[in-house]
Parts: sequence; structure tokens; C-alpha cells
Amino acid sequence: KMAPGIGGFGGLYPFGDSYLVAGTDGVGTKLKLAFEMNKHDTIGIDLVAMSVNDIVTSGAQPLFFLDYFATSHLDVDQAEQVIAGIVEGCRQSECALLGGETAEMPDFYSPGEYDLSGFAVGSVAKAALIDGSRIAAGDVLLGLPSSGVHSNGFSLVRRVLQVAGASLSDPLPGAEPACTIGQALLEPTKIYVKQVLGYLARVPIKGIAHITGGGFTDNIPRVLPASLAAQVDMAAWQAPPIFTWLQQAGGISDAEMRRTFNLGIGMVLVVDAAAAADLLASSSAAEPVVRLGEVVPGEGVLYAPW
Amino acid sequence: KMAPGIGGFGGLYPFGDSYLVAGTDGVGTKLKLAFEMNKHDTIGIDLVAMSVNDIVTSGAQPLFFLDYFATSHLDVDQAEQVIAGIVEGCRQSECALLGGETAEMPDFYSPGEYDLSGFAVGSVAKAALIDGSRIAAGDVLLGLPSSGVHSNGFSLVRRVLQVAGASLSDPLPGAEPACTIGQALLEPTKIYVKQVLGYLARVPIKGIAHITGGGFTDNIPRVLPASLAAQVDMAAWQAPPIFTWLQQAGGISDAEMRRTFNLGIGMVLVVDAAAAADLLASSSAAEPVVRLGEVVPGEGVLYAPW
Repeated sequence: KMAPGIGGFGGLYPFGDSYLVAGTDGVGTKLKLAFEMNKHDTIGIDLVAMSVNDIVTSGAQPLFFLDYFATSHLDVDQAEQVIAGIVEGCRQSECALLGGETAEMPDFYSPGEYDLSGFAVGSVAKAALIDGSRIAAGDVLLGLPSSGVHSNGFSLVRRVLQVAGASLSDPLPGAEPACTIGQALLEPTKIYVKQVLGYLARVPIKGIAHITGGGFTDNIPRVLPASLAAQVDMAAWQAPPIFTWLQQAGGISDAEMRRTFNLGIGMVLVVDAAAAADLLASSSAAEPVVRLGEVVPGEGVLYAPW
Repeated sequence: KMAPGIGGFGGLYPFGDSYLVAGTDGVGTKLKLAFEMNKHDTIGIDLVAMSVNDIVTSGAQPLFFLDYFATSHLDVDQAEQVIAGIVEGCRQSECALLGGETAEMPDFYSPGEYDLSGFAVGSVAKAALIDGSRIAAGDVLLGLPSSGVHSNGFSLVRRVLQVAGASLSDPLPGAEPACTIGQALLEPTKIYVKQVLGYLARVPIKGIAHITGGGFTDNIPRVLPASLAAQVDMAAWQAPPIFTWLQQAGGISDAEMRRTFNLGIGMVLVVDAAAAADLLASSSAAEPVVRLGEVVPGEGVLYAPW
């Protein structure tokens, strides 16, 4: 019995009047930066974020989270820092840390290194499921700012660091307040759960895209019905300095940037004009909402100006 | 918000009239044997087994499973074999493969190697939860045979192979039908879900222990109330040849064998005398049930003869 073939960012399982929504993810090669900077207390936030940001796209409230932590030889201090980040991620997403597995696997990982995977389950009333099916031309695309690169695209990030001969302790040009490239890159992934569930309590949301690997280009179309496209005004917001630096230092094309990174917007909501007006009116410095563009007939993502 | 502090093998989350029960595990260093034997189509059964055998101990029916597969560079043929095993494990436990994550993590894993973790979620009516609380002196311990070493103790297994200078392709002494040491060790973990749920439909079961790392010694006490011990008659069944070989080749004490391996019994049920009589009467060659001993006043596991 294979998965029910429902698209979207989390797997759906019917349970009474609800769907259980499950997501799993790791943090990829962002871990290598944590190793190099010997900073292990926020990577657990990234781990929780990747899964709970996926399941909230269905309108689901995260219920619980489990982690898998694998290393060659357990370093208790290091593991405690990692778990502290996971606990913080669960706190931010108001879900229970229900369990986990710590695996010592000799000869699997390099000394001091580890891998992580996470698993979140949420629930949403069947009638409240967000699946993009009611999206229509003229709907508005709203963006919620990211905290940085989040947890995708780090293989490209590492190539840029190498090609540019840059050090993680170099200052990041244009950063305000000042920070190093390493600090900007390791900034933990923003968890959108409370913000999105708060909006859902106020207005209907037709579709939500979590901007992970693949950027806008791959992720927005996952929530759009056939024959509809996302028209995105690239002048609607400014990409944070880390993306400017990555593009310049790596000589990366606009198209590759757009299909790899979130470019400063980590979650995209699709709403009707009335809901858009409500949410844009509530935009604040603490929780900004950006009008990115709108849904138009077509296919994929249309970036303007071209 | 931390996990509800309920013991047992799976984490419990109250949901309406049910508990959701979640478990996560990997397959540990059994993977190294799969790599050495270049056989990847059954390790996925082990992966599913470790999690679903945990959650069925609460009386929960597994609903769905997700996997995390991490490797340095994706080998599609190898990954397909691994996934085929996961699909088979889900079939055996009648749960949906709801999703998964395939992570390419350059510089994390040796060429040709990978790590796996799995997550299973089940549900049980609150009134039907098995938590060991009603276990009393005089209750009977029943054992369900394992298919071999299952997926724990492989760090010790690998040390024995090294110390003994044994090859995975050596014949296993006493094996019937004949097989190699490698084949016996890689035999996939038995999935007890259908068998245990079938028993539960017929008789009350007071406690269930999944015999993983720690053997009887650590796992049976996890389901016993305070001041009760498990008295186990070691003559009640015969450990399969792989355990005899491991003990002799490695010069391992009885005590270490008992707190490391399942010794031929992968699941232990605690039932009253009437239920024991019913289940023992149903014992067949295909689904044997072994009377291991009984619950007595005391603490831990008492092995007889000593």
C-alpha cells in the first residue's frame, strides 16, 4: 500500500474527521558549516523548521516531533547542544518533542560529525485542508521574509566559499548589523507555524508554498492548479546581503539563484484580494508581509522585470 | 513543551479518543554488513520493523511510515533496492509509505554507503492502550521467535567477526538449511504487527516488550510495574545457531549475550493464565508461541537455571 498520491509538502493520512499530515527532512550540508564553526545549538532549530514549515502548508497544526541523531561516537556535550536546538524549535512551533533516537555508528561519520533527520506530525480538519485547488487567476501572492539561506542550497554555498576563497569569519558586505559570512549562513531557519496559523484563524488561505531547495521556481508551482502561473515582481522586496554576496562571489546567474535559494522569502501564501488586504494591513516590522505579485493564466513562475 | 513522560517503546500523543503512537529508529551498523555483502533489498524491511515493532507494543496499529535516506552521491539502483525493502516492510505491517526524504550529502558518507532512519505512526483507542500497568505476579511470559539477530548488537557482531577472523561467506555451523554467517546475520527483522494485532483481537494482552539492544535484561523490565520481575526459563527454547556461533567465536559471557541479543525471541507478551493457554494452544510451526516463564515478585529479569 503506497502513499495516497496527494501532492504538496507533507503526506496526508485520513484519520476520522481530520487528516494527519507528516513531514520528514534533514538539514543537509548546512551541517558542515556547523561543524566548521563548532556551533551546534541552532542546527536543531533548522531541523524542526524544515519539517514543521512543510506540514503547516496544509493548514495543519504540528502536534509532535521526533528526531534521529547519528554519529560515530557520541559526544555528550555536542549532543546536548543539538538537542537544545531541537527543543527550542519545538517550542517555537508549539509541538511536543515526543521521542528520538541517538545512534552510535562506528565508522560511519568523521570524528566530530553527525547527521540529523526529523519527523513531524500535525493534524488539520478535513474541511480546513489547504491544497491549492481553489486558487484562481487574480489571487494575490504574499511573501513572508526568511531569516537567510535557511537549510537548502548549501552544496552550492560551499562551492561558492571554495571558489571565492572566502572564509566563514570574513565580514559579510552590507550586513546590518555587522556579521560574518558564517554567522549569516548559519542563522537558523525561520519557523512560520505560529504566524501562519494566526493568519488562518483570521482569513482563508488558498495555498501555501514552503520555499526550500528549488526556490520559487520549483516550489510555488507545487500548489498551483494546472494552467495557472505565479507572476512575481522581483522589485517587491530586496534580497538580504547574504544572497547578493553569494551571487557575486560565485558568479551565479539570476535563474540559478531563483531555483536554488529563497532569496529572502521563505513562505508564500496565495489568498484572494480581500484576505490580501487584511494581511498586508497587519504587516509590521516584527512580522512583515510582502505583496509579491499575483496568479495569472500560464505555467510556472514568471519573474518581472525579466 | 516536552514529551509526555510515558515509558514504553513508542511515544504517545493523545488525539481525541485515541493515542497516536510514534516511533523512530535506524538499523545501526547492520548496514555495514549490507555494504560488505552488496545486498540492499532487505535492509529496508529491518528499518520498518524496528519502528513498527516498537509501536505495536502499545497495542497500536501502524498507520503510516516515512523514511530518511542519506548518502554522499545518489546511486539510483542501490536506492531503488533499499526502497523496495521499505515497501515490503510496509506491506508486511499493513501501513502506508506516506513519504520520505532522499538526501545527497557530499563528504558525509563513504562511497557506496548510506544511512537510514525511519518513522512510524500508529493509533490505539485510549481504552485499549497496553501499558503494563495491570501486570501481576503469576502472569505468564510468552515469546515470539525472532528471525535472527534482527537489527541490534551489530557493533558486537562486527567485533566478533574481526576477533574470530571469520568471513561472512563462511558456512554457519549447525544452520539448517545450510547458510553462510553473512546470510544468517543479514536475515531481515521479523515484523510482528499482524501476529500481535491478531492475538489482541482474541485475548487481552497486559504488556509487550520488543527485544532490541539490551536483550531481555533491559527490555522486559520496561513493561513491568515496580516490584515485579520476569522469571525466564532459559531451557524453554533453543537459541538459533547464529547466537551459538557468536558466543563461541567471540568468547562472550551468558550475561553479555542476554543483555545484547534477542537470543531467538524478538517479542515478549505478558498475559494472564487463560490468555496464555489460548495463545499456546494456537501455536503452530508457522507462528510459534513459546512459554518463557512468569512474572514473580522482585526486580529485573531472573534467568533460570542460573
